[in-house]
Amino acid sequence: MSVRVDLKKAAIGVDIGGGSVKLGLVLPNGRIVDKSFFATPIKESKTYFLDVLSAHIADLRQSAKEKNLRVSGIGIGAPGPIDVERGFVYFFPNIPGWKNTPLKSILERILNLPVFVDNDANAMALAEYWFGAGRGCQSAVCLTLGTGIGGGIILNGKLFHGSTFSAAEIGHIIIDENGPLCACGNHGCIETFVGTQYFKREVERRLKKQKSILHRWLKKDKAKLSPALVGKAARCGDALARQMWKDVAAKLGIALSGLVNVLNPQKIILGGGIAENRNLFFAPLNKTLSEKTFPIAWRSVKVVPAKLRQDAGLVGAAALVFASKESIRIS
Amino acid sequence: MSVRVDLKKAAIGVDIGGGSVKLGLVLPNGRIVDKSFFATPIKESKTYFLDVLSAHIADLRQSAKEKNLRVSGIGIGAPGPIDVERGFVYFFPNIPGWKNTPLKSILERILNLPVFVDNDANAMALAEYWFGAGRGCQSAVCLTLGTGIGGGIILNGKLFHGSTFSAAEIGHIIIDENGPLCACGNHGCIETFVGTQYFKREVERRLKKQKSILHRWLKKDKAKLSPALVGKAARCGDALARQMWKDVAAKLGIALSGLVNVLNPQKIILGGGIAENRNLFFAPLNKTLSEKTFPIAWRSVKVVPAKLRQDAGLVGAAALVFASKESIRIS
Repeated sequence: MSVRVDLKKAAIGVDIGGGSVKLGLVLPNGRIVDKSFFATPIKESKTYFLDVLSAHIADLRQSAKEKNLRVSGIGIGAPGPIDVERGFVYFFPNIPGWKNTPLKSILERILNLPVFVDNDANAMALAEYWFGAGRGCQSAVCLTLGTGIGGGIILNGKLFHGSTFSAAEIGHIIIDENGPLCACGNHGCIETFVGTQYFKREVERRLKKQKSILHRWLKKDKAKLSPALVGKAARCGDALARQMWKDVAAKLGIALSGLVNVLNPQKIILGGGIAENRNLFFAPLNKTLSEKTFPIAWRSVKVVPAKLRQDAGLVGAAALVFASKESIRIS
Repeated sequence: MSVRVDLKKAAIGVDIGGGSVKLGLVLPNGRIVDKSFFATPIKESKTYFLDVLSAHIADLRQSAKEKNLRVSGIGIGAPGPIDVERGFVYFFPNIPGWKNTPLKSILERILNLPVFVDNDANAMALAEYWFGAGRGCQSAVCLTLGTGIGGGIILNGKLFHGSTFSAAEIGHIIIDENGPLCACGNHGCIETFVGTQYFKREVERRLKKQKSILHRWLKKDKAKLSPALVGKAARCGDALARQMWKDVAAKLGIALSGLVNVLNPQKIILGGGIAENRNLFFAPLNKTLSEKTFPIAWRSVKVVPAKLRQDAGLVGAAALVFASKESIRIS
């Protein structure tokens, strides 16, 4: 006589980054019940990478078994351009050796489980939409403000991928064709005004001309300069720091005003280091947006901070599994 | 004994403009089988407007009867912001007296037929998608370059409206916050570099400093200056005129590069007076786009001229009726 046990559903989310690969056993409500990680083996072969990844996934599957959970699939959030339908990796920006890799089919053969691969920024957008600041809305533009700007767009409650899965490259909206040089080769992408590197460089430039508490704080170690430190200075009332935040927010507002006028979304969700300085950032951003968007579009959009922090990538990757069944791809 | 005649389906399209209202009896293949129009009664009451409109619609229904056609609905393309779901007109920019009018329900009561109302730029985008340059693709960005820039976006084969039906305001993407003042109150919207008025003003400015065949052509009547005339001058090899087209195309390229990076569409369809100077315009536009978009997105998009001319508004309005049944609204 066989006893049939109804196992609860779970998914394994994998967040591949340039520094580390994080894995989580995630419930459909977004709760992480087990975790693991390993340093991204950037100097090893792809086969080695896949071996380590598979071993970690096997451990989490064992953990699921012990918890009476049924793993219904593996979701992977990865950097760089991906053919989402085929789970095909064109390349990983900071991890050599992955050019044109059919990651989905390789892993499905190894693991005998459905595998879903998407861009990491899309996975994070999905996480916020399902479990975070985007819950209950139908359309959202999600930005992660860090070294670069990661973007994901939700339309009709689904991830919007575009015709060849390269939509939502929001960081490279040009707001000033004569602006600073961007890593992409163009000038004046919004990333060049908001990305961490550019942010720091601009603060350094201003520090040469203006008094600031930052001069004292950075005396011993200039490398300590970070958006967080400039945030701290601004909260101390430092004029240079306050102005810097205002200016960065206003620039981002220019790019986002275009998105609001074109996409008319319900939410703009801002995450990442820069956005964490919320009080300094959101007021001038909202001011710019209110001035530079159409009233109907402006009245219907809310700019909100992201709710999920470092685990957003994991949870979003797992959400790719939960979302897959009902997902009508918007392209 | 009753004889049952299977009537072929048709729709009546209505294109409401500031100068005239055009009507057409349209087949599902986009062919117009009868037409009428009247001057927009901007000085009369809304009731008068509706009376004239209803009379013209009645005539076309009679015409349909005689042609053994069954009119399955009325589609209306109108300027300004519209709640597409309710067919509610917030206002018409150049026609007084229409503030907050439930046009759909008023007309359905009068006509006893389903009525669909949408923005005129959306109707034109739908026309190009169904019957023109967008046939067979799933996603397209449509622009009509005239006094302003009308925009419509097709995603997943449907009109994309946004959360409150105000999406696709492409003309007001800001590409230079220190640029010329726009009618919307902001500076440096793409409309201020490409719209007819701004185009003419810029040519006038350059004519003050530079030789051109246009000096001779405009000697007797400065009001003759138009994009078409500057196009003619460019085709004669006039340096000022050629440069002007290049510069306008490059500016538009900046705004469109953002759209390509964000929406990753299959087609960009350009219509209107400015775009008709195709040979002068498309090459520099494509050059800018190829430089300022992501390779994957750039490879998958084609910039093409609109195929439908002055009747696009009509045909698109009728297409609102044909599209209505299967339309899953993308928002």
